[in-house]
Amino acid sequence: MTLRIIATGGTFDKHYDELAGKLTFSESQLPDVLKRARLTVPVELEVRSSLIDSLDMVDKDRQEILQSCKNSQEKAIVIIHGTDTMRETAQVLGAAKLDKVIVFTGAMIPYEIANSDALFNLGFACGVVQLLTPGVYVAMNGQVFLWDNVQKDRSAGVFVTNS
Amino acid sequence: MTLRIIATGGTFDKHYDELAGKLTFSESQLPDVLKRARLTVPVELEVRSSLIDSLDMVDKDRQEILQSCKNSQEKAIVIIHGTDTMRETAQVLGAAKLDKVIVFTGAMIPYEIANSDALFNLGFACGVVQLLTPGVYVAMNGQVFLWDNVQKDRSAGVFVTNS
Amino acid sequence: MTLRIIATGGTFDKHYDELAGKLTFSESQLPDVLKRARLTVPVELEVRSSLIDSLDMVDKDRQEILQSCKNSQEKAIVIIHGTDTMRETAQVLGAAKLDKVIVFTGAMIPYEIANSDALFNLGFACGVVQLLTPGVYVAMNGQVFLWDNVQKDRSAGVFVTNS
Amino acid sequence: MTLRIIATGGTFDKHYDELAGKLTFSESQLPDVLKRARLTVPVELEVRSSLIDSLDMVDKDRQEILQSCKNSQEKAIVIIHGTDTMRETAQVLGAAKLDKVIVFTGAMIPYEIANSDALFNLGFACGVVQLLTPGVYVAMNGQVFLWDNVQKDRSAGVFVTNS
Repeated sequence: MTLRIIATGGTFDKHYDELAGKLTFSESQLPDVLKRARLTVPVELEVRSSLIDSLDMVDKDRQEILQSCKNSQEKAIVIIHGTDTMRETAQVLGAAKLDKVIVFTGAMIPYEIANSDALFNLGFACGVVQLLTPGVYVAMNGQVFLWDNVQKDRSAGVFVTNS
Repeated sequence: MTLRIIATGGTFDKHYDELAGKLTFSESQLPDVLKRARLTVPVELEVRSSLIDSLDMVDKDRQEILQSCKNSQEKAIVIIHGTDTMRETAQVLGAAKLDKVIVFTGAMIPYEIANSDALFNLGFACGVVQLLTPGVYVAMNGQVFLWDNVQKDRSAGVFVTNS
Repeated sequence: MTLRIIATGGTFDKHYDELAGKLTFSESQLPDVLKRARLTVPVELEVRSSLIDSLDMVDKDRQEILQSCKNSQEKAIVIIHGTDTMRETAQVLGAAKLDKVIVFTGAMIPYEIANSDALFNLGFACGVVQLLTPGVYVAMNGQVFLWDNVQKDRSAGVFVTNS
Repeated sequence: MTLRIIATGGTFDKHYDELAGKLTFSESQLPDVLKRARLTVPVELEVRSSLIDSLDMVDKDRQEILQSCKNSQEKAIVIIHGTDTMRETAQVLGAAKLDKVIVFTGAMIPYEIANSDALFNLGFACGVVQLLTPGVYVAMNGQVFLWDNVQKDRSAGVFVTNS
């Protein structure tokens, strides 16, 4: 089995720009992260040309991500995505009913900041993507959610089911 | 689903003792690690009374770990273990044929050292333990291995199948 | 010799708020930082009641910092301050001609973010403050600047003399 | 003023070798550390050909370090050294009465391990080396010690004067 990992940006990949004095995007940190993870399972890393905050994501971006999934030779796909609109992108992909396992994950604290959950979440997603049946999922907080039954509870900073 | 996580020590949990000038064991870092992981899935953490290097593990230790698994109310168990004899302990548990999912993981670089794979591996294990069928597994390097078909390639520092 | 360290906020002490998704201020990280530094020289830590970005600092804040320095029993004072208006606050203190050594320092990257210069800068400041003659200084980039001959080169992200 | 920084190894520069499962020496981490420190003061970094634990340092090593200091064009020299025999090497250099400022520093916890004092100590040493009068000093725990009045209190893990 080969995994495809699609990096779209999001909190996971935010980088502190010391000249601007704020968190923004630079080169993706995923190549370093994957090296650190010491994976022997083959991985195709696809870094989107423009890493963005998921609040800035528009329908065109979601269509392009859908196209990436359609084009993917790999049946197991992890998408690293901002948490704020992870659900919206998951819905676009879920409706497309591809015969692939697509798992969204992200982070509440950027990878490069102390106490980040990014590496845990990526490990979790890389695990479940190999075992789930085809479909679209959100993997956050140590849980797997179905794309059509998940939402972010912004006041608590965690993902929960809809009901 | 509730997870049980059993901390036995191993490289994952090694701590630098600045007075002795070497890596040893102190309090388990797992409580901090789990907080950082932002889990909402319930977790029972069981820290063994004496954290040890897996090269120092003797049969009595393995029998106690087996007993912990037998006693566990949780059907999904992650065991954090040193990599050098992870296979040996997995064999003791595998032979017992418990009706539970037991996933071993660990780290090549201690959690508190730069570039550690510990958090990724724990995330991976916490994911697959929720989806695998009952049995005993080793989850390392982004792969799931069966307990009776895994070994550590010490020169490469990775886990591989036996054949 | 006892050191007084006054924490005013600034990039050094910024903390990522995962619910708001931005860098802001919470509890000062200085108590942890000082523990980590393993100091045996006595230190009085004074954390200002409201940690702020130095771009938000107004004259009232500067007068209060001046008052803290005047009140200080310690003759050696390190002030942790945002870099953007470090020069302005140094000018207020410099003009007061106190018979104390006052050293400003800060960070270009927050203490809790990978690759931060915060700990180096604090070490540097805690060293020079013990050896300089009374006066007001800025200690950044491994250099000591006089309060009336320093400016931040914002495009390069470094401190330089005026000429 | 230009600084010379001589890296000899010691706890500061220890690196975890994941295949051997222990702390040892690899490439010096000083080039990365200095980049992180964002120095604008010119620095000549001299990494000794063989980085060693200071307990393994023999008289020949000390004579070579002395020779490096004699040959140094720079009048301000920071030596990164293991703490266990820092005093012994300082005595060899102190007895040579060079017309240079030589400051020893090191770390109780390796640079790459969580909670390390390495970066603070290096900052401290880089500061005081620019201000001290010629002589040989040990800079640890936020204090400057004279080479002939310093010892390591091993049970407390701190440097103290002899009396």
